[in-house]
This record gives sequence, C-alpha cells and structure tokens, in this order.
Amino acid sequence: MVRTSSEFLKTLHPGNVYYRGKKIDNVVSHDVLGIGAKHAAKLFDYPDRVFTGNSGEKISKYFKVPENTEDLISRRELIYNTTNYCNGIFNISQAIGSDAIFAMKIVSQKIDKKYNTHYYKNVESLYERCIKNDLTLAVAQTDTKGDRSKRPEEQDDIDSYLHITKKDKEGIYVTGAKVHTTQSIYADELIVIPYRNMTKKDCDYAVAFSVSTNTPGLRFIVRPIDELEGNSSSILSKMDFEVETTTIFDNVFIPWDHVYMAGEGEFAGELANLFATFHRFTAVSYRAATANLYIGIASMMAEANGIENAGHVKNKMLDMIQYKEIMTMSSYTAAMFCEIDSGIAVPNPVYTNIGKLYSNENFYRLINGLIEISGGIIVTMPSVEDLENRQNQKYIYKYLASMAPGEYRFNLLRLAKELAGSNLAGYMLTLMAHAEGSVEASKIGLLRGYNVNEARDMIRKILMPGD
Amino acid sequence: MVRTSSEFLKTLHPGNVYYRGKKIDNVVSHDVLGIGAKHAAKLFDYPDRVFTGNSGEKISKYFKVPENTEDLISRRELIYNTTNYCNGIFNISQAIGSDAIFAMKIVSQKIDKKYNTHYYKNVESLYERCIKNDLTLAVAQTDTKGDRSKRPEEQDDIDSYLHITKKDKEGIYVTGAKVHTTQSIYADELIVIPYRNMTKKDCDYAVAFSVSTNTPGLRFIVRPIDELEGNSSSILSKMDFEVETTTIFDNVFIPWDHVYMAGEGEFAGELANLFATFHRFTAVSYRAATANLYIGIASMMAEANGIENAGHVKNKMLDMIQYKEIMTMSSYTAAMFCEIDSGIAVPNPVYTNIGKLYSNENFYRLINGLIEISGGIIVTMPSVEDLENRQNQKYIYKYLASMAPGEYRFNLLRLAKELAGSNLAGYMLTLMAHAEGSVEASKIGLLRGYNVNEARDMIRKILMPGD
Amino acid sequence: MVRTSSEFLKTLHPGNVYYRGKKIDNVVSHDVLGIGAKHAAKLFDYPDRVFTGNSGEKISKYFKVPENTEDLISRRELIYNTTNYCNGIFNISQAIGSDAIFAMKIVSQKIDKKYNTHYYKNVESLYERCIKNDLTLAVAQTDTKGDRSKRPEEQDDIDSYLHITKKDKEGIYVTGAKVHTTQSIYADELIVIPYRNMTKKDCDYAVAFSVSTNTPGLRFIVRPIDELEGNSSSILSKMDFEVETTTIFDNVFIPWDHVYMAGEGEFAGELANLFATFHRFTAVSYRAATANLYIGIASMMAEANGIENAGHVKNKMLDMIQYKEIMTMSSYTAAMFCEIDSGIAVPNPVYTNIGKLYSNENFYRLINGLIEISGGIIVTMPSVEDLENRQNQKYIYKYLASMAPGEYRFNLLRLAKELAGSNLAGYMLTLMAHAEGSVEASKIGLLRGYNVNEARDMIRKILMPGD
Amino acid sequence: MVRTSSEFLKTLHPGNVYYRGKKIDNVVSHDVLGIGAKHAAKLFDYPDRVFTGNSGEKISKYFKVPENTEDLISRRELIYNTTNYCNGIFNISQAIGSDAIFAMKIVSQKIDKKYNTHYYKNVESLYERCIKNDLTLAVAQTDTKGDRSKRPEEQDDIDSYLHITKKDKEGIYVTGAKVHTTQSIYADELIVIPYRNMTKKDCDYAVAFSVSTNTPGLRFIVRPIDELEGNSSSILSKMDFEVETTTIFDNVFIPWDHVYMAGEGEFAGELANLFATFHRFTAVSYRAATANLYIGIASMMAEANGIENAGHVKNKMLDMIQYKEIMTMSSYTAAMFCEIDSGIAVPNPVYTNIGKLYSNENFYRLINGLIEISGGIIVTMPSVEDLENRQNQKYIYKYLASMAPGEYRFNLLRLAKELAGSNLAGYMLTLMAHAEGSVEASKIGLLRGYNVNEARDMIRKILMPGD
Repeated sequence: MVRTSSEFLKTLHPGNVYYRGKKIDNVVSHDVLGIGAKHAAKLFDYPDRVFTGNSGEKISKYFKVPENTEDLISRRELIYNTTNYCNGIFNISQAIGSDAIFAMKIVSQKIDKKYNTHYYKNVESLYERCIKNDLTLAVAQTDTKGDRSKRPEEQDDIDSYLHITKKDKEGIYVTGAKVHTTQSIYADELIVIPYRNMTKKDCDYAVAFSVSTNTPGLRFIVRPIDELEGNSSSILSKMDFEVETTTIFDNVFIPWDHVYMAGEGEFAGELANLFATFHRFTAVSYRAATANLYIGIASMMAEANGIENAGHVKNKMLDMIQYKEIMTMSSYTAAMFCEIDSGIAVPNPVYTNIGKLYSNENFYRLINGLIEISGGIIVTMPSVEDLENRQNQKYIYKYLASMAPGEYRFNLLRLAKELAGSNLAGYMLTLMAHAEGSVEASKIGLLRGYNVNEARDMIRKILMPGD
Repeated sequence: MVRTSSEFLKTLHPGNVYYRGKKIDNVVSHDVLGIGAKHAAKLFDYPDRVFTGNSGEKISKYFKVPENTEDLISRRELIYNTTNYCNGIFNISQAIGSDAIFAMKIVSQKIDKKYNTHYYKNVESLYERCIKNDLTLAVAQTDTKGDRSKRPEEQDDIDSYLHITKKDKEGIYVTGAKVHTTQSIYADELIVIPYRNMTKKDCDYAVAFSVSTNTPGLRFIVRPIDELEGNSSSILSKMDFEVETTTIFDNVFIPWDHVYMAGEGEFAGELANLFATFHRFTAVSYRAATANLYIGIASMMAEANGIENAGHVKNKMLDMIQYKEIMTMSSYTAAMFCEIDSGIAVPNPVYTNIGKLYSNENFYRLINGLIEISGGIIVTMPSVEDLENRQNQKYIYKYLASMAPGEYRFNLLRLAKELAGSNLAGYMLTLMAHAEGSVEASKIGLLRGYNVNEARDMIRKILMPGD
Repeated sequence: MVRTSSEFLKTLHPGNVYYRGKKIDNVVSHDVLGIGAKHAAKLFDYPDRVFTGNSGEKISKYFKVPENTEDLISRRELIYNTTNYCNGIFNISQAIGSDAIFAMKIVSQKIDKKYNTHYYKNVESLYERCIKNDLTLAVAQTDTKGDRSKRPEEQDDIDSYLHITKKDKEGIYVTGAKVHTTQSIYADELIVIPYRNMTKKDCDYAVAFSVSTNTPGLRFIVRPIDELEGNSSSILSKMDFEVETTTIFDNVFIPWDHVYMAGEGEFAGELANLFATFHRFTAVSYRAATANLYIGIASMMAEANGIENAGHVKNKMLDMIQYKEIMTMSSYTAAMFCEIDSGIAVPNPVYTNIGKLYSNENFYRLINGLIEISGGIIVTMPSVEDLENRQNQKYIYKYLASMAPGEYRFNLLRLAKELAGSNLAGYMLTLMAHAEGSVEASKIGLLRGYNVNEARDMIRKILMPGD
Repeated sequence: MVRTSSEFLKTLHPGNVYYRGKKIDNVVSHDVLGIGAKHAAKLFDYPDRVFTGNSGEKISKYFKVPENTEDLISRRELIYNTTNYCNGIFNISQAIGSDAIFAMKIVSQKIDKKYNTHYYKNVESLYERCIKNDLTLAVAQTDTKGDRSKRPEEQDDIDSYLHITKKDKEGIYVTGAKVHTTQSIYADELIVIPYRNMTKKDCDYAVAFSVSTNTPGLRFIVRPIDELEGNSSSILSKMDFEVETTTIFDNVFIPWDHVYMAGEGEFAGELANLFATFHRFTAVSYRAATANLYIGIASMMAEANGIENAGHVKNKMLDMIQYKEIMTMSSYTAAMFCEIDSGIAVPNPVYTNIGKLYSNENFYRLINGLIEISGGIIVTMPSVEDLENRQNQKYIYKYLASMAPGEYRFNLLRLAKELAGSNLAGYMLTLMAHAEGSVEASKIGLLRGYNVNEARDMIRKILMPGD
C-alpha cells in the first residue's frame, strides 16, 4: 500500500513533542512545525516514488532493497530527485529508515548465526510493516556521550549512552537520550541503533530496536526553527526545512519483537558502521541537489550583477560546481563498486567516504562562493518590512536595480541572504560538517576500507625486480 | 572637550531613521536600536581613551594624527583594545571618521595645490569640530553602482552613483545612495567620499563632503538586526552589535565649507585608496580582537568536551590562532613600514593588504574551527525557552553535561551557536569577506603598492653576473 | 596483426633525432634513449593487450573504438593497468594516437559534410594502417606561440604556429615547431593537429595530418633525461621514463591522403577540444596508477619509520588516497555519462575535466605527502657511491636502520628521493600541472560543457512558485 | 679580528670528508665541493658585516648578542641581506653557530645554578674564540633516532642517539651520528646539542659540546650535489649551494672545557627548544630572500610570455608575494615582541613559529607559481648541449622567442627549470618542509608558547557579565 500526502498527515501522531518549551498537541496544524510536516509530506507527492513488488503490491522505492549497482544508482537518483523536488532541502523521511533497515538485515543475520537469536525475523517484520503501511521513519543514533574520554559503562552518569535498564520475558526497558534525531516528530516509527563499537563491559549499551513515536516515556524536544522564525525575509524556509530533536527515553518499554540487538556488543560497531555507509551514500546523493541551490542563485546573481564573465567569479562558480560534481562522482562510483553482503548491495565505503569527507570539508565553498558573488549587500540590505513603507520601497527598488530590475534583484538578494548570510547559513555550515558523520568519522570510515596493497606491490616490484 | 557616554547618548539626534519600515524617532530608547546606541556609547566609557593636546585640551585618542610608527602602533592598540572592551565587536564610531579625515588631510592639500581650491581649510575645520566636540562619525563610500560594466556617467539611472546635481554660490546639491554605512544612525556627522577613481566625464561624481545626520533629504534605512531578533538564545547580540544603513541622499544641500572635493575627478581614486589603506589598517587591528571570541570559546568548548588534546582539535585551534596572529603581524609591520605623506604616517599598504586579504579569505576558519570543536549539537540543541519547562530543563542539563556541568555547557553551546550557527555567523562570514574591501579590492591594493625590483635584480645578477 | 616488443624495437626508425646536441642514429641501442625505447616496448609485452576484430584479426585494445560506457571503462582499465605494468609511468605509445584518431573520426565527417572534402576516408585509412601494423603513434599539438597576445597570423615570426606554406596537387608543405611531443622518437607515425580555434584569417594554421617519423624536414630535439643521468641513486628512471621532443618541421611535404584538415579554421577548435577530452580521460586514467608510486612508498616508509599511526601521517596518507581515488571517480563517471557522437563514445567532458583540474592543482600533495612522511633525510642522505666505501656503508646501514634494517631503509629512501626530492620530482610536478592541458585549460573545458539550468530552475521555482 | 674570504679558505681544514665514497683531502680545490666553499667564503666578502666591539675590536655582526628588538631587527636584516648577496641561497656559516651560542649562553647559566657546574664559562670561552678568530660554525642536532616509538635509552642500537660512552677527568667520549649537518665541512668548529628533551634514564644522551672539524673519530659523509652535477643547464648551482653531511662520531674525545652539558637531562629539551627558536627566526629571515628568486623570475617570465596581466598569473604572483611578506612579517613581529632572558633578546616564539609553519606548508607555492607561469616547456625543452649544435641552436632561439628574444627566453627557462623542475626543486621542496623544524615541530613550538587566556577571559566576561 502507498499513502498520499494527506493520508500521511492525517495519521501522524507523535506523542510527547515540545517546541520552545511548550507541548505541541498537533504538529501538523502548528504554525511552525506544520511546515516541516508538509515538507515531509511532499515525499508522498513526488511523482515517481512507487514500484511494484513481486506480489503486485505498490511499494515506496525507498524500501527497494538494493541488490546491485543499478539498484543503488536508482536509489541515488531517487534521493537526488526528491531533494530537488523539495527545493534542495533533503527529505529524510523514508531514506534514513531504509538505510538502517538494510544495515540491520545484514547484521541481524550475523548475530542470529552466532547467538542463535531471532533478530532477523524481527527486522523482516519491521520491513514488512514499513512497505505495507508506507511508513515514515526516523533513526536515533548519536548518544549524548558525557565525558568523551570514558567508555559508556565508565561514565559518572550511566545514562550518558542509551542503555538497557531491565530485561524481562516481555521485552526490554531503555533509558538515555539521543541527539540530532532528524524529522522524528514526523515519523511513524523511530529506529534506535548504537553509536559506536561496544565491549563486553558495555553490553547493556549494545541495543537496537524500533518504537512507535507515541510510546510512553519518549519525549522529543525540537530545535528552534530560527531559519524561519528569525528571518522575516526568508523564502525557502517558509516552504521547506527539517527538524532535529533531542530524544529522551525515560524507562521506555520495548517488546522483544521490536528488538534487533540487546547486548551483543561485538556487533554494535559493525551495525553502526554499516548504517553509516548506507547513510553517507544517502548524504552524497542529496548534497548534490542541495548544491543546486547555491549554484543556481550564484549564477543568476552573477548575471544580475553583470559580472558573470569576471575571472574571480568564474573561479567561484568552478568551486561550487566541483563540489556538486564530486558528490555526483562519489555516489555513482560507490554504486559501481558496491559490495554484496547477504544479497544486499552495500555502497563502496571508500568512494562514499571520499565524497562525504570532501563535503564536510568543502561545503563552506558553496556559502563562500555565493557571498563573494553577491556582495556585502546581502547582510546590510533593508528588511522585507521596509517594502511596506511606500517611499522606502521606491528607494529600494531604484537603488538595488542593476542590469536587472530592482524588485527582481531584491528578491535574489533576499534568497542569497537566507542561504549565505542568516540562521539558515549557520545551520547549513554546521549540519554539513557533522551530519551523517563528522570529518574525523569520514576519515576513519575511509581508511578502514582502504587497501594499499596494490600500491605497495608496485614499490616492491621496483625495489626487488627479481622477486 | 571629551564627552561621557551619557552625554553622547543624550545629544544623539539622527534625522530620518527607518527600521523595518517604521520611522524611529528616538534611536536610543528603541528596544533594538538602543542596544546599538549603547554599544557606540561604550567608546566613551573605555578607560584609556584620552590624550592631552598641545594646548592642554583633552582629546579622544582616535583623533591623534599619526606621525610615525609609534603613533600607528598606539592607534592599533586603541582599536584592538576597544574591540576587546566591546566583547570582540568592533566599535567604529570614531575610527572610521578619523581614517577618512587623515586621508582627506593629505589629498585636500594636493587638490588645493593643483586647483588653488580651499578644501584643506574645510578639512581642518571638520577636524577641529571633531576634537572639540568629541564627535562620532560615519563614512559613506560604497555607491549602489547599477550596471557594473558601465562607468558612473554611462548609467541608465544617473543616480546609480551619488553625484552633484547643482552647484551654486552657497554650496552643492547631491543625490544618490550609499550602502553599508556602518553606525550612521549613531553618528553626529556623516562623511561622504567617492567609491572609485573618476574621469573627466564623471567629474560630477567626484565629490566629498560632510553632513550632519539630521540634515533634510537624508534618510537611513537600517538593516534588520536579525542576530538579536532572530535568535532568542543570543547572548552577545543582546550586548553589542553595529548597524549598517542604506543611506539615501535626495537633493541634499551641502554648504561649501563642508565640501572637500567637488569635481576634481583625478583625485577621487587617490582619496578612495588612501582612505582604504587607513581603514584596512583599522580592519586588521580590530579583527585580531574579534578572533578572540572564537578562540576563547573554542578553547573552553574543547575543554568542556574533553577533547582538547586530540590532534584534529589542536589543528583547528592552530588555524584560529594563525588567523588572529597574522592580523597582529599585519598591523604591526604596516605600522613599522609606514610611509610619511604630508607629515602623516600612512600604514604600509602591502602589509595592510596582506593581512586584509588573509582575513577575507580565511575568516571562515574561525567559524569552521568552532563548529568542528563544538559538534552538530549547536544547531540541533533545544531552545532557551525549553529551559522554562522544568522537566525539559532537567533533561537538558542532565544530558548536556560532559566533563562540565550541564548548565555551563548549555551556555557555552548557546554562545557557540550564536557565533557559528546562526544569523550572526552568516552576518560575520559576509562582513568579513567584504567589509573594508573585498578579496579583489585587497588584491588590487596589494599589487598596486608592490615592488618586485629587488627580486628581479637578483635574477638579472644571476643571469648576467658580469653586468 | 600484433607485434611483439622485439619486433617493435627492430623496426623503429625515426629520422632526425638529436640528444644533447648529438645526432642519434639508433635510439634503441643508445645508452639513455634505449631505456625509453624499452619502456615503449613494454606495451607489447603487456599480457592482456589484444582483442579480436570482426574479421578475426588480432588488434591492440588501444585501437578499439569506444561505443558505450563499457568500452570506455575497458579503455580506462587498459590505461590504468599498463601504467601499473610500467611501474607507475604512463605508456603513451598507442594511447595518445588513438585519442587523436577517435577525435578525427568525428570531426572529419563534419568537415566533409560541410565542404565535401574527403578527410574521413584519410582518417579511416590511417586507422586501418594502425590496426594492421600495430603502430605506435605520437601526437604533436602545442605550438610555440610566440607573442601570446597575438593570433597566429598576427605574429612577427609567421612560423610561431605551424602552418601550411604551400598547397599543390600532391599535397601540402608545412613549417613550424611543436613542443612537448611525447615519445615521438619511439613512434612509427606522428599525428599533427591544431592547438586552438582558428579564424578565417588564420586558415593556413588550421591543419591536421600524419607523417612518418623518418620524413625529411622533420627533426626531433629530445629533452635531457636528467632524472636518469642526473641522479646516480635513481632506481625507477633506470627502468621507465618517457621523452618529450621539440619537433621541428622545416617545409615538410605531406601527401593529400595523409591530410585531415587543411584550412577549415572553424573546425580547428572543435578538433583541439575533442582530442583534449579523449586525452584528458586518458590522463585521469593513468594518473591513478602513477599515484600508486607515491602511496605505496609512503605507506612503506611510514611503517619503516614507525609512525604509521600518527595523526599527521594518516592525514597525509588520506590526502594521497583522495588524489588517487578522485582520479578513479573521474574516469568512471566520465565513462558512465559519455556522449555518443558519430557512433563513438566521448567521455563526459565535465567529469573528465573535474578530475583533470583536481590533478593539476593537487598532484603536489603526492610529493608533499611523501616528503612529510620520509623526512629531510631524502635530500641530505649519502649517495649510492658511498656504499662502495666499505666503512661508509657500515655506518650508513647502521645509522639508517629504524624498525627496518638499514639496507632496506636506504633503498626506500633512495626511491623516495627519486620520487620527491630530485629531477624526477621537478619533472613530475611540472608535467602534472601542464600535460594534457593546464589548470586554465581544464577550467575552460569544464565550464564549456557545464549546464547550470537545472540549478537555475530550482531558484526560479522558489522565487516564483506560482509559475 | 675579522678574516677575509681568502684567509678563511686558506685555513679551512676539515678532517675526514667523504664525497660520493671518496675521501676528499682538500674541499676548497675540489671541483664540486669547492663551489660550496666559495659560497661559504662570500660571507667574508659581504660589505656590511662588521661592528666594533666595546674594546674597539672588529667583530662579525653575526656574533653580536641581541639585547633588544633593534638588535634582532639588525640580525634579521643581516641574514636577509647576506642571503640576497648569495643569490637567494642561505649562508649559514656564522648564523647557525651564533643561534646555538645564544641559546647555550642562557641555558648553561641555569644548569650551573642548579648543579654548580661551570658550563657558562665554557660557552663564554667558545664565544670569545669565535669573535676573536671570526670562526665559521656548524651545528649538529638531529639524531638518527632508530625506532621512533622508543626513547633513546630503549633503542636496540644504543647509538641511535648520540651519547656519552665514557667520562673521565679529562673529558667525555661520545658515539653516534647526526644527520642534516649543514656546511659542516666548511666550519672551523662543530657545535653539538641534543635533539629533544631527555629523562633521567636518558641522561647519557643529554650532551652538548663543541669540537674542531678535524678531530679524530669524526667523519663527514657529504650528500651528492645533484643540483649541480645532475643538471648541465644549471646556472645558480654553479655559483651557490650548501651541503649537508651525515656526521659520524666514533668514540670522539671532548675535553671538559668544550663541554656545555653532560647528563643534565632536564635541560636538554630547553636547550633544543631555545636553539630552535633562534634558528627558526633565522629561517624566516633568510626564506624571504630565497623567495626573491622565485618572485623575480616569475615576474620576468610572465613578462617574456606576455601574460603578466592575466588574472590567473596575478593570482600566482600574489601567492608568491604573500609567502615572502609573511616571512618578513614573522621576523619583524618576532623581533618586536622578543623576550629578554639573561639579558639576551629571544625572538618571540609565537610569531617565529607562525612564519615557520606557514613556510613549511606553503613553500611549494613558490615552485607551483613559477611552474604555472613558465609552462611545461621548462621540463621538455632542449638541453644546453643542444646549443652547441649550430642548427639546433638556430631552431631553439627561433622557436623559443616570444615578446622576448629566443636567447634571453632560453636562459630564463633554464633558470626556471633549475628552480622549479629539477633536482634543486626537489631539494628545496624537501628542505623547506623539514629544515629548522618540520610542520609538526613548528606546531608544537607555536602552541607551547601560546596564551589563550585573553580570549577565554572575553568569553567569561560575556557569559558571566556580573562577575
């Protein structure tokens, strides 16, 4: 079954949502959070989102398990195109959940094999629920971590990493908090997985499960949507944004059939890394579309300012294009050199992480390129409220005119300000440096998968040609 | 005479000020603009701001005409220290005006010599007025420029550059607009100078003058202070910010004794460049203090996160320190290698522009370093309003605790967000790329003053050792 | 027919070859140039070099005309693998010629169509000759250019660009010189194509043809092979290098059936660009293999120095790996997004040039990474002749020992010196910045093919959502 | 007393010198090493090298102990100017020795104070000998280090760091080897100091002394001068270069009055660091002059190629100028903010290391800038031997002509090749990355001296304004 956007919005029912200190009973009708809900809902309006399963049922393409390069390329196109469809803002609602499910499908089989557990069955049951009900999902992974020099079980506050507090015949109880949970309040279910590798001692912290977003004991504290509320000139943020929550688990009960790992510490790292690989593939896919925002407006601004042929402007455009196309190259080669594990095509971790690392370290070039081409005017210009004053409006349009009419240029500048000189810019800069893995995480992921033997063999052959 | 901050605030009386479309009658008592006024007023509270003139009068140190290296170093320290005094936010109120006056003192004498005019006398009279009344000043230089491929007089809208519309026995009349006029609404007088070199044909555009900020025909449209109004968690912006205005001149009359150039096109470029050199010296001076904001919080955050000894954290700290100290090096060597013109010490343009260019191209490193060290949490964290909800507050302080208590870390993160993940970050990134001259302007300024002869002589000696 | 390496070497007969001022009668038996000949000959020893044509004949894979993505990927693998086979040094002998032929196959048809000429037939005849005789080819493209601010026909010395001096019934006569002609003295034939676009006025300069390397009037002045002769410690250069020549044409006669363009100026730029695209695809393919040299030895050196786990060493390894893998990504995505023209698959110019530009600007990272990891010792160490002194040898092996034995480490350092601290390093740095197109050429190639419409449409949709 | 260059050359008498495996009896008359000797001797020809001591004696300015900013600036000018005098190649012969003596003057007093030793007297005696005889000195510091993960005393080969093997009433005996000893074979005396901090356990490795270069048991193995012998086109290397040696100590006896540290491990690190600070100040001083080589020829080449006004050429020139002037800024601010210790002005370690770090990481920009501006021709051009062939010469001069005559451009290219495309380029790249301290060493030096308190105080004041 597939849902329409209005069906999705109608059935959305997260439990304990707080925004700016207030409990929000209905996230869809809320002034601010409703926009994020509509953004999530766009996924259901995207024209080309469905494929036909083996038994003839309609299924969201996000849940198509990739079996080969072609499937991964289709997934990349799906992510890229839906991001374009949502004006360059990623739509995570089925992407991240399927990333996690693919990883859990692989790892749960390995745990079952070693421990004779039945996690794979639970993962499959989650998967069937998703495709049957066209669910939206969030994934909570990053723990709050307390003292970073200590392992989970060494922390003064044992809740610094989310952990199992009790196990009984019916299920497990968990306490802790996860940060950066994107679009959780628009998700039907929330998947929780470990942040890092665990040891024997930390085994209570090796836990993966899923839970409905209206489960008792669960609380979502939403970040302030300052890019909308803090910039009256914003245009894009009035249409599209995603929220993150700090997600609190206060002794939440999880029945066994929703549990996918519960103490098998040696698999925690593998699940974390495998999810990261799928999710970074998603990242390099959507970031190429996000780049369109910056390339598009910079190109139009250069033209409106009459400087599109200046050497330094071309260099800035090249910087921005390089960023976008290295994202494209990363996703396509990651798909091309995928590795099959348990019948699932895993994006190549080297090419995925090269793109991810490039993005983490170079996203600022998109912001910088737009700033250089637009000029300081994007932060010193009058506000949109000034247009309501007739005389000010007259002056503003007169004096902001260039090759282009004043009104058109004012709107270009307004959007450029939103993208490069405002709360959204700060949010983007931070997000792109940390989301889906920081610089250091990408470096570790890259080197972990890298084989230098071919290169070392060349040197050995040169130094010892007789061998 | 020197004023106190309250004397300054009491007498402030800009004329036509608009904020978010509304005319503001009293900028000092206004909720938002009042904060900028108090920031400006801090200058008068700064303990070490006065020197004793030749006739025993007390004078603001900003108006001390630099005659040698030592004077320029004192000026650098004054700018650096007052910026520190204002929490890392530059206080331009007497800095930019004196930069302009020093440049006009030099250039007006050259015009007078060539044309037998009397501009120098007018400049001196302005200067005397400043020191006598301890005035604050703004400088309006950047024209709106219309079609950037055309010269001023070729524009479709002849007002695209501010120009003289009429001259009579009493004075001149000017029309046009200037953008990016910093702190104009807190200035007693506004100095206007040309943006660029002019030709014979553009001679009506070669105009310099000063004007009281409550002169008829003058209108200030203030940028929205989004860093304050658009971030309820802001801390610094509740204390210090500067405003920029779009400054409209609609047939404003200027009496002759306030005019410092009126048609002598061949001096327009020289004045623009000389002012730029003084003002970029000011820029590299204050930017070292602004860097303290980022270095200070990054250092405390690294400690609170327990990662201060990690290699990548040290590398980010080094990036930030390099930025600050290259600013310091730039100002001190520019002072040391100053050039004396008409008895006034002009900062060395090469060392000034090297620092300025480095700042334009590398300021993002301060933001990036803070983002890397702080983590994504600065943009996904709960809002300050969440603290008002007791249960949320409890969770927030519990889960944001690290080596440091939760409340302390929350406040650190709040300020880090303001500096690196908010409207202020976008404003800073844009400002630091363009204010006091863009990348391209700094490059031009640097190459204009650069002498490669010593280097070429070395090559000639090598290639033709006999010569 | 395919040849063996000894058949190739036996029949090699370039005409007028000069090395260090001396005419070289036999390049194969020459002490220095013989090594380059043997390098060229390795192509014929490479195990997997032949495919079976439609009529059952054996053909070098280099001459397989690419018709789709798969063919381009095979070509990339061929180039990458033969470069690995030749110890990381590119083997151009059939690569560049086929690049030119593919381009000429496309462009000649367009000229014929417009001018009713018969160039395509001539190209086909060249192609048949190549596959039938398994020829090696060189391509001469870069003119000497004289005064770069003038077009070819405006030059004081009209020979600054190679041009037609006479046409008659039998053929054309050409005069001029081409620089950077790689491996010309080991080529059976030399293909000449224009360097740039030409206008009507420059039509005598729009000329493409092929010529046997022993044709009268042709002279090859070989660069000094300093990496071999100027570094007694060299290891790699004793096995593999390629030569470039300054190639002089002094009124050389070309019969019409060897001419592929003769005056059709408007096609000169197209041919130059199309060849550049094919050849830059070749470049990004071989450069990934050249990177193996640096990655391999840096990895072994880090281990021998016992620093492979230091953070800064890992960062340098990452730099080097990124370089290599962006080359890989570039070639694969260029193949994947190829464009079919006249039945021939042309590598995507955007992805080709992104890789090429990255290589031009970042090759130094390979050298720098190796220098950082190896230490200053690579340039201050004793010479290989010191080993012949028994006491010195004893000291050298004793004191160069680390985790690794002294003799092994000495050899590693020797090779590291060759690659990063010697003539070869300087040659590589220069070559990688300019060969197959400079930074500026790559930028032009990239922007020429780039479409920003998708990005601009996104902005238009945001600004005018109703449209 | 001051010497003339011929007096210096006449009395030079290093003992055991090996070059390419051969013992060299007379380094002055040797074909290759004689050039290095003449380079060293230029110091004595430099016009402005002498000051008058308190008792009226003439003393080399290198031995003037800096007591304040002015003295350090004079020292910087001396180093910069003598480097210019030697065609951009540093002349270390009295610079490094005085750097070490200044450091030993300070540290020896501290050791004496703690241990009641008499090292200061010995240092003073060395100093008097230097000024009285106008000595040249080398400094040997870097040990061979063996397994870098182990401390000196933990090494398998206890000689991996130079150490005391025996102490008796007369003196000490030392064994080990030092690498990178610059110009040792042209030094009258060799000063040896520790490489790193030492612990109690490593106390035999905490040793500092001086020794005549013809002392028994001492052996110098000179690096091959490939930049001269391996590039027949070289111009500069025929005039100026410096040599490094691997310096072997095989049970060398040092009388007590030549010993400056012998077991006081806790001072080893301090001496190493203090010497490093003086010597890095020397580095940033001479590197500004070395940059002249690259800036000068790049400027002349751009002109000869007719591209001096192209945007990308200007950007490359700016890169090179920035490099040079950041060196200048570094030395001047290090002098300005010097710290006085025991009456000696120590260059500020922060500003010294900022310049040094910038140089280590950015020297390649000089090479790269020259390569970009010169073109690939610098490595593919004919050899200088080709000029001896009359016909080749004719062609070469004809076709290398541009705006400039062919012969002039050939010579420019020859020198550009030497500087950017040859053994010298590889040597320079490596040297500039490692000499006087590697990147990592500069980072450590910079952070060690850095005070973030001012910055942290700013944040504290903002977060806790009431405090």
